[in-house]
Amino acid sequence: MPDPYISAVGLSPIGSTDLTGRDLFTAALTEAFEGLPPPADVVDAVYVGNQSELYEHQIMYGTIVAEWCGLRFAPAERVEGCAAAGALALRHAVRDVRTGTHDAVLACGIEKMTAGGSELATESLSAAFDRPLEQRAGVTAPSQYALLAQRYLHETDATEEDLAKVAVKNHENASRNPRAQFQSEIDVETVLESDYVARPLKLFDCAPVSDGAAAVLVTNEEVASTLGSSDEQVQVSGVGAASNNIAVAERDLTFIEGANVAANRAYDQADLSAKDVDVAEVHDAFTVCEPLLAEAVGFAPRGRGFESALHPSERSAEWTDVRLSTSGGLKARGHPIGATGLAQAVEVYEQLTETATSDRQVPDARTGLLVNEGGVADAVTVAHVLTTEGISNE
Amino acid sequence: MPDPYISAVGLSPIGSTDLTGRDLFTAALTEAFEGLPPPADVVDAVYVGNQSELYEHQIMYGTIVAEWCGLRFAPAERVEGCAAAGALALRHAVRDVRTGTHDAVLACGIEKMTAGGSELATESLSAAFDRPLEQRAGVTAPSQYALLAQRYLHETDATEEDLAKVAVKNHENASRNPRAQFQSEIDVETVLESDYVARPLKLFDCAPVSDGAAAVLVTNEEVASTLGSSDEQVQVSGVGAASNNIAVAERDLTFIEGANVAANRAYDQADLSAKDVDVAEVHDAFTVCEPLLAEAVGFAPRGRGFESALHPSERSAEWTDVRLSTSGGLKARGHPIGATGLAQAVEVYEQLTETATSDRQVPDARTGLLVNEGGVADAVTVAHVLTTEGISNE
Repeated sequence: MPDPYISAVGLSPIGSTDLTGRDLFTAALTEAFEGLPPPADVVDAVYVGNQSELYEHQIMYGTIVAEWCGLRFAPAERVEGCAAAGALALRHAVRDVRTGTHDAVLACGIEKMTAGGSELATESLSAAFDRPLEQRAGVTAPSQYALLAQRYLHETDATEEDLAKVAVKNHENASRNPRAQFQSEIDVETVLESDYVARPLKLFDCAPVSDGAAAVLVTNEEVASTLGSSDEQVQVSGVGAASNNIAVAERDLTFIEGANVAANRAYDQADLSAKDVDVAEVHDAFTVCEPLLAEAVGFAPRGRGFESALHPSERSAEWTDVRLSTSGGLKARGHPIGATGLAQAVEVYEQLTETATSDRQVPDARTGLLVNEGGVADAVTVAHVLTTEGISNE
Repeated sequence: MPDPYISAVGLSPIGSTDLTGRDLFTAALTEAFEGLPPPADVVDAVYVGNQSELYEHQIMYGTIVAEWCGLRFAPAERVEGCAAAGALALRHAVRDVRTGTHDAVLACGIEKMTAGGSELATESLSAAFDRPLEQRAGVTAPSQYALLAQRYLHETDATEEDLAKVAVKNHENASRNPRAQFQSEIDVETVLESDYVARPLKLFDCAPVSDGAAAVLVTNEEVASTLGSSDEQVQVSGVGAASNNIAVAERDLTFIEGANVAANRAYDQADLSAKDVDVAEVHDAFTVCEPLLAEAVGFAPRGRGFESALHPSERSAEWTDVRLSTSGGLKARGHPIGATGLAQAVEVYEQLTETATSDRQVPDARTGLLVNEGGVADAVTVAHVLTTEGISNE
């Protein structure tokens, strides 16, 4: 059986909005199904990634999304692994199609984070930490990631300026992405002069709080062939998921092992390796994540991931030629928690179908990697390999 | 490929406890794996049903459970469909084994509801209602189910006394189940004289608020054959899931259509029908649910489900011989939301393996049905058909 297809994608506005979770989902769904038959005529089942009921006091998003699609009596549910919820939803859709369980499945992600300001977001995200070992100490997400960043700067040649360059590169990419939350470029000084949130991480090292929703339609070959030509669709060739110990103190701070395991599972299933990847969206919740993940998934040698913001020709020789976070990443595209993993899929879909805006389109991109994480770093990681392949209606 | 097996089950204490969610899970896991190899030597992946982060301010229960099992780097996640979360977890485990994705998967459910008293439980459960149409009107779960009960008493010959008999029967069953939250029998007068919560539902028509966890190990034939003899294991022969419109006002109050669809899907997959079912756990969050579900899943003719508390010989001729909620049901076994669907599986597993206490064991029980619902009634329903079948090591 051919690999499952991504036949359509949609993304809501991302940022601080007046929209509810359903409004955001409606925007994503409408874009995904533009020019296609109604969702109820195509979709067999629904998975919804959603992190927290604290924002909207609403659970049961599976049922709500199914109803919004006109899918009465369809199987539908919410999946949750904090910020990996979106990729967990995509993984279910891919597995249902791959195993022949369903012909077409909608994976979506929804988060309405700005309703209660940054205080509520901080409170909500802290629920992903281990309660006995971490929450009770009063740690926040930036302070947890600062542990990783301190260690990374200690163990490698990287400096705060190198981390700042990640933010600058991702803002530059976002400035070319009309979907991004931040549309303006920044410079290294702006990052370095911004206030420390948790040393060494400063305000501009941190992804923002964002509202947003994304929808990704996964289909088998038969359905895919009815929905468009092969150059409008991509294939999901590999999927890997891995959990790791919940508490940061019980993990390796210098190597994101769970991401390594998840990515290798995805590469193995796709029969590809890191060097085959042309474009990748990695989970840059904080700037330090991008170098750490570049090392974990095999793009960069250990200790040199901080060159991720450099042009491929300027990086160490052992680096691959991958282009990272062309969307602007979590840092600048925005980070609507439960939707982020699917927003990553939207970007790589656009890169592989050559529908990205011309000034951010990577030429000849044929293979993409999505790395979506939940909890601090790799408490859970989901990796997907997307490829361009022909379908039989060619 | 043979149907997936349930090779082991475990259940924590259910009720108002001093235990955390992890403690409850540990109790369930320990029971399930008594006499078996350690979980990490058996289990490939984990799904955790859990309704609400409000109780413990803890999400990421997939990762936590995987770590508690010693399963570093295993795929693990939380699934949520309010009170159907447990059966959604079981459904994933069954599908992963059926499709050959994994050899052995742990489905578990965890809810620590009593931490904040009944006020927090009421607040938490209301998040399952439609926010614009229902939550903002201030409705509670009893008031939502009272709408169904009022209509049922209006449309049928049932009386409040008939509903009271459901509570009496389920307390009687619970008094024979050492795992049940309520261990004492009650009489019809006790129910009828209890205070109205939402007319016509009285205190004793309502399931309690409960802490609890359950663990169910789903395996393929090869793993099952290493874990015990065939009479210690049952098979999952059919699974069905269906969502329905989120708001009660947008559904048929007199017939639980989603449960009908889900059960029929499960029967079709199992190639069985309602009349083949010997024992069933149906989702009696309120007494009126048992008659409504008995009609929806084909045990009772329309309008006669309220005879569910009667001995089969006293029911209308069109009734099947099924025995309902031998555990005591949600009403008296207890209703730890995310664990309930798996507590149902524990009871039917015990009935089919003839390991229930002798005074509640149904003789010659060969086929069982689980009906687990989330939201008010059938906002989402998951049905499983369990059967006793030999495995090849016999």
